[in-house]
Order: sequence, then C-alpha cells, then structure tokens
Amino acid sequence: MLKTSQRKSFLYKPIKLNPPQILAIIFLVLVAIGGLLLKLPAASVNGVSWIDAFFTAISAATVTGLVTIDPGSTYTLFGEIVILVLIQVGGLGIMSFAVLVVIMLRKQIGIKQRLIMQEALNQPSIGGVIRLVRNLFVFSIVIEILAVFLLSLRWVPDMGFSKGVYYSIFHTIAAYNNAGFGLWPDNLVRYVGDPVVNLVITMLIVMGGLGFTVIVDLWISKEWRNLSLHSRIMIFGTIVVNMIAIILFYLFEQNNPATLGSLSGSDKLWAAYFQGITPRTAGFNTVSIGDMEDGSLLLTILLMFIGAGSASTGGGIKLTTFLVIVFAVITFIKGKEETVMMKRTIRNAIIYRALAITTISISFVFLGVMLLTLTEKAPFLEVLFEVVSAFGTVGLTMGLTFELTFLGKIIIMFIMFFGKLGPLTMAFTLARQSKENIRYPEGDVFTG
Amino acid sequence: MLKTSQRKSFLYKPIKLNPPQILAIIFLVLVAIGGLLLKLPAASVNGVSWIDAFFTAISAATVTGLVTIDPGSTYTLFGEIVILVLIQVGGLGIMSFAVLVVIMLRKQIGIKQRLIMQEALNQPSIGGVIRLVRNLFVFSIVIEILAVFLLSLRWVPDMGFSKGVYYSIFHTIAAYNNAGFGLWPDNLVRYVGDPVVNLVITMLIVMGGLGFTVIVDLWISKEWRNLSLHSRIMIFGTIVVNMIAIILFYLFEQNNPATLGSLSGSDKLWAAYFQGITPRTAGFNTVSIGDMEDGSLLLTILLMFIGAGSASTGGGIKLTTFLVIVFAVITFIKGKEETVMMKRTIRNAIIYRALAITTISISFVFLGVMLLTLTEKAPFLEVLFEVVSAFGTVGLTMGLTFELTFLGKIIIMFIMFFGKLGPLTMAFTLARQSKENIRYPEGDVFTG
Ligand SMILES: [K+]
Ligand SMILES: [K+]
Repeated sequence: MLKTSQRKSFLYKPIKLNPPQILAIIFLVLVAIGGLLLKLPAASVNGVSWIDAFFTAISAATVTGLVTIDPGSTYTLFGEIVILVLIQVGGLGIMSFAVLVVIMLRKQIGIKQRLIMQEALNQPSIGGVIRLVRNLFVFSIVIEILAVFLLSLRWVPDMGFSKGVYYSIFHTIAAYNNAGFGLWPDNLVRYVGDPVVNLVITMLIVMGGLGFTVIVDLWISKEWRNLSLHSRIMIFGTIVVNMIAIILFYLFEQNNPATLGSLSGSDKLWAAYFQGITPRTAGFNTVSIGDMEDGSLLLTILLMFIGAGSASTGGGIKLTTFLVIVFAVITFIKGKEETVMMKRTIRNAIIYRALAITTISISFVFLGVMLLTLTEKAPFLEVLFEVVSAFGTVGLTMGLTFELTFLGKIIIMFIMFFGKLGPLTMAFTLARQSKENIRYPEGDVFTG
Repeated sequence: MLKTSQRKSFLYKPIKLNPPQILAIIFLVLVAIGGLLLKLPAASVNGVSWIDAFFTAISAATVTGLVTIDPGSTYTLFGEIVILVLIQVGGLGIMSFAVLVVIMLRKQIGIKQRLIMQEALNQPSIGGVIRLVRNLFVFSIVIEILAVFLLSLRWVPDMGFSKGVYYSIFHTIAAYNNAGFGLWPDNLVRYVGDPVVNLVITMLIVMGGLGFTVIVDLWISKEWRNLSLHSRIMIFGTIVVNMIAIILFYLFEQNNPATLGSLSGSDKLWAAYFQGITPRTAGFNTVSIGDMEDGSLLLTILLMFIGAGSASTGGGIKLTTFLVIVFAVITFIKGKEETVMMKRTIRNAIIYRALAITTISISFVFLGVMLLTLTEKAPFLEVLFEVVSAFGTVGLTMGLTFELTFLGKIIIMFIMFFGKLGPLTMAFTLARQSKENIRYPEGDVFTG
C-alpha cells in the first residue's frame, strides 16, 4: 500500500490527473453519450424530455435505478438496450471494460491504464490486474448466462420465448450490476413469493455486491483460511448484516397489511428475505417501499448508506467501512486499545479513514437533504430516503422520484454521481494522505 | 495533556473509578433526590406521576428543558425551586459546585476531587482549577445578578414586584445554564419582539455556552492575541455560526405565516436572531417550533447536534469538534496534508478524536430515533428532532414531548442522560487512548 501510493504519486506528477479525476471524466463522457442516445426519437415511444433522458443516463451509468419515468413503457427496445449497456459499462466497471477492450484489440495495456484499473479494483499489485479482470469477466459472463437460463425457466412459460428471454437478460444484468432497473412499473412486486425469482435475483445481487476482489479471492483460495482478511470480513459481514436485516424486516412488517401483513406464511418470509438483501445496494423491491413502517424505512436507510463491498458494483460507504467503525466503537466502549477483527489488529490509519469517509458522507447526505427540502414539498422521511438512495446508488424510492421538480432532479443527479465516485475518491485521497500514519502493519481492509 | 493522563492512570488504579464514572454516579444521585422531591405532594399543584417527576428531574439536572407537563402550572413554588436548584447544580457544573462547597466548608480539596474538576473543566493543570472555579463562580453570580436586574426592569412593571423578580431569577438561571425551562406554557413566544428579553436571554445563553475556560481566559487575557487557540476558535466560531444561522432562519421563515411571516419588520429580525442562537443549546423559543419549515427544522437539528462549547453548560458534540471536522474536510478537499486553523496546525489526534466523537454520536442518535420510531406514532421529523434535542440537552420540541408514551419517556430520559455525560466520557477515553498518536505538538483544541 505504502509502496504503491509512493510509486503512484511519483508517476502522476507529469500527468496532473489522478485516477479518480480520470474516472470522473470517463463517467461524464459515458453519461453524455447515453443521455444523447436516449433523447433520440428512436429511443422512446412518445419522446422524453432532456432532463429525464439525462436523469436516466446518470441513473443507469451509476447503476442506481432511480427513475423519473417508467422505463418499461417510456423507452423502446433500443432505449432499453442503451440503458442496459450503460448499466453493464458503469457496473461491471468502466475500468474492467476499458481493459477488456484493450485485450480484445490485442494491444498492450499501458502503465497508466493499469494504474487506473488498480485503483478501481483496489488491487495492490499492478501485475495481477489484467489476470484479475480477465478472470472476473469470464466469471461474470458465466454467472449471468446461468442466471438468464434459470430466470427463463420462470418467464418464458409466462411471456413466450423472445420476451421471456429478453426480460431474463435485462433483469440479470440489472441485478448482477446492482442497478435496480426493472421493466415492470411495480418492479418485482408481482414475484414477491416466487422462489426462482427471489433466489436468482438475490444471488446475483450478493455476488455483484461482494466486490470483484472477493470473488476472485474465493475462486483462487478455495479454503476459508486462505482467504484474505478483507474477503473473510466481507463474506461473514454480508451474512450477518443480511440475516439481521431479514429478521428485523419480518418483525417490523409482519402486521402491516400494506406489505407483509396480507401475504401468506411463505410469501411473508420471501418478502422479508428479499427486502433484507436489496437495500445494499440493488434497488429492486417486491413490496411497496412507500407503505413500509417508519422503523423498516429507517433500517433501509441505514442499509442503503452502508452499501456493498469495495470494488463492487454497489455503492454506499461500503460494508467494511461500517464494520471497522462498529468494531472500533466496541473496542472503545470496552476501554481497550486495539481494534481486533477476526484475530487481526486493524491499523489506526484504517479506522481513521473509515471515520473520515463516514463523516464526510453523512455531511454530504445532510447537505443533499437540506437542498431537497427547499426544492420539494414532501414529507421529510421521503426526502431523506431519496437522498440516501441516490448517494448509495440504490434506486429504492418511497415514490418521490416521480414527483421531483426540475431542480430536485438536478440535485438527485448530482448526488448519484457523487455517490458513485465520491467514496472511491475519498478512499484514494485518504490512502495517499495516511502514508505517514501507518504504524501497526497487521491486517489490511479496504474501505470506501 | 500527555503528562496529565499518565499521572491520572497511575493515580486511578487503586480507586477503579474514572472521573466520568464518578460524574455519572453523582448525577444519578442528584436525579434520584430531585425526582423524589418533585414527587412530594408539596411540589405539585394536583400531583404528578412518578415518570413525569423523574423526567422533569433528569431534564433539569441535564439542563435540557424538555417537559412532559407544563412546569409553570404543574409545580408549586417549592417544585419550581427544586427544578431551579437541579439546573444550577447540573449546569454551573456538579463539579464546580462540589468544589465550592468544599471551599465554603474551608476544607482542603483532595487530589481526587481536583482531578474530577480538572476533567469537568478541561483544565490541564491541577493547580489552576480551584482558582478557576472561584473566579468562575464569582463571575457567574455577578452576571446573573446583572441579568436579573435587567429582566426585572421589563417584568416587574408587568407582573408586580415579587412575581416579576421571581420570573427574572428563574429565567436568568435557566438561560445562563442553557436549560430552556420557562414558566410560561408558550416559553418566550410572547416576548418575540421585546429587545430587553431578547438581548439579556441571548447574552446569558452565549456566555454559558462559550465554556468556563473561555470566560476565564477572556477575563485573564484581555487582548485577542493573548487568548488560547481554543478560546479564539470558540469566540470566532460562535459569531460565524450564529450569524449564518440567523440569516438562514430569516430567509427560510420570512414568508411562513405561522412563524416570521405575520410579524412586523423589527419583530421578524428579533425572531430570526433569537432562533439562530437558541438551538445551541439553550432550548428557549420565541416562535412555535412545530410550525417552522422543514429547512429551518433541519438547520435547527444541525445546530442542536453541534451544541455549545467544551466545559460549558451546553451539550452536543461541541462547536470545536464540529469546526475541526469542517476544517479537516476543507483540507481534504483541497488535497492538502495539514489542517490549519487560525495559523495553527491541528494535530491528527485531535481530528481523529473529533471524527470518533461525531460518528459515535450520530450512531447513538440513529439508535434513539430507531427505538422511538417503534414506540411512538409520530412523523419522522418530529421524532428525529426530539432525539437530537435530548441528545444535545437542548430542550426544543416540535410538540412530541407532551405526547410521549411511557416507553418513549424512558428512551428520551436515557438519551438526555447520555447526551450530558456521553461526549465528556468519550473525550476523556479518547484523550487517554490517543497518547500514542501525538506527533505534531502545535496548537491544542478541546473537543467533546
Ligand atoms: K442500485
Ligand atoms: K437546554
């Protein structure tokens, strides 16, 4: 870590753009192209306004899934494919995509592209990046083909072959990239009790949300004890946090007639299971979010804020950032000096980075809520929910997205953009700054 | 700082109670006595329930000012004097009070009491503590007598001599201790445009909220450049933050008929002035809080969370904690390495402590909101407002306090208790932990 960042700052002096800045520029170009394509007459059934076209483009490229219009009925097949491409590019990673293109063109990857990749994938060694991306890409395609096959088993009988397969492809890509876009106006509410849809979609969400490095680590290591500390924390943390979320959703919503209350016993369980997994940061839903109890909404807000894994398709402050803080607070309450996770001491530099990312993110969300409070006439909880959803690139909404004013749309677009690139930028900058603070070289966790 | 904490930990090993624990025990004893006295038949006009008596006692001892009943009509003169004593004891500082008692009894102050004092007043040297407290106490009494005289000029003509003077004493003590208790059911709404009430009450609030060390520093130093970094940041920060708050309140509320909209030009200014100052953390109000715009309420929540100065009568994470984070974030955004405030480098240990205090406080508030969401049927913003008000020992409410369920009262009581002692405990524990991290010995700021 230390060596890498020194090498980076040495190399980057002549270029004057750091990896986060380059990522931001690529992102803006992607959004510009996507927005223009979606504005084309061929992309929409009855036309779409400039602001809505660009809102869709940012939402897709940041794999958020918030929509000001119903994408299924507004866009043509061409428009939907544009969205799908934006999702796959923004989600599977602009960087892995760029490297893949280079590989396909059989060109050598330059040192600069490698460094960008390395940043995007949180890979400490330059050498492993190309191999990692190739493995990752093969793995992702295999997983996606498998998921399309399984979903087709469910949807081809319902909708016929071509529509069934197309819907399977669309929702598979959206789910694996944690993008939350759906082709039904009610998202996945009609499949609330369907085991195939529930299991396939949630598996894709969790795979995409673990983070590329974890998946590759799992592939290579095969045994639990060979896994890196980061991978073990991500896997263990995902299971524990999701389990707690599922149980709390069940408890909070079981008697709410507008959500779980009116469902049968097994449907109740499936609905709690799905809503416990989707806020980090998939954005699909099988019950109506706007009808949930305040306790569940607050829990969802927390989960959306936490988000998925570092170098994953998901957003948020990242699960590791959250867990580092939880463990640091427990250490603090116990009056101990060293924060220990899974028998490894967590370096102070990592704890401080986690605290800084969290504090800056909360400040940013606060500012967003403040601004949106001034532009929108909506209950406070809906505004807070919307802002955290955009920040975490989640895509869940209590219904406010459809009612946003022009200024409100601009604000949410900016928050999605920051939500996608902000934590990465912070992690990068703080990693560079913290080189002097490294003291206890035991155990390494990626945050942000 | 380093020497002191080492000395402390050496001295405290045989005793096994650290200063925050001793403070907590003293506090609980104070609340127990106060609650029992308020439950006495002589204390209330028509009786008061156990829970409401103890709620009042905790609210008074933590100088919060949230009330489940109207204190003016519920309690007798005896009950009100109990409240006043709890406020003065809890506010001017249990510790300064304890030392004062010892001085009055002409006994020597033991090393243990001195250390407790030292912790409570954030005074690095043991020797200066007794002198500090004596100066402070004399100064406080002089200020309070002056304020009582000024308020009497306004209230004696209105209410006659004895009632006018009594009301002046009560509101002076409440204001100087940032306690927010009022004897009118609408707090100070009837004096929204009164210059005397506005100026005297806000001066008392600001004096009490600057922190004892700042006041003493001002007294001793006389010149701006002789003041400590902490004092300069507190004075400058108070002016800037209050100015911004006043301007924003004016902008947000000027057209709201339920607050500023229906007032005359000068009354509008006075109302904005008062509401800009009171959230940190006085708790008085001259307009109806429940009728404010969401933007103003959110601003109030932020101000309540920030709170007053270290070692002051106010609560919250403290203004210095907030400003350190603001400056650290600006440094971070600028891509610089060192956080500089008023030409002094802020040590990393201080920044990390500020981040830790803020993150833990936000987590605590989140947990409180979550619990209260489950026990109360109220709009989310009212619940959030109530929890932050209790955490910051502010005492402002959108109206929820009067409607709290039994469980809700218990939760708010606990939050007030934590809000009073939590930040102090955190600052103490983190100060002890951070001894290894001290690297750049330039400039010192108290946080928490
Ligand atoms: K999403
Ligand atoms: K107060």
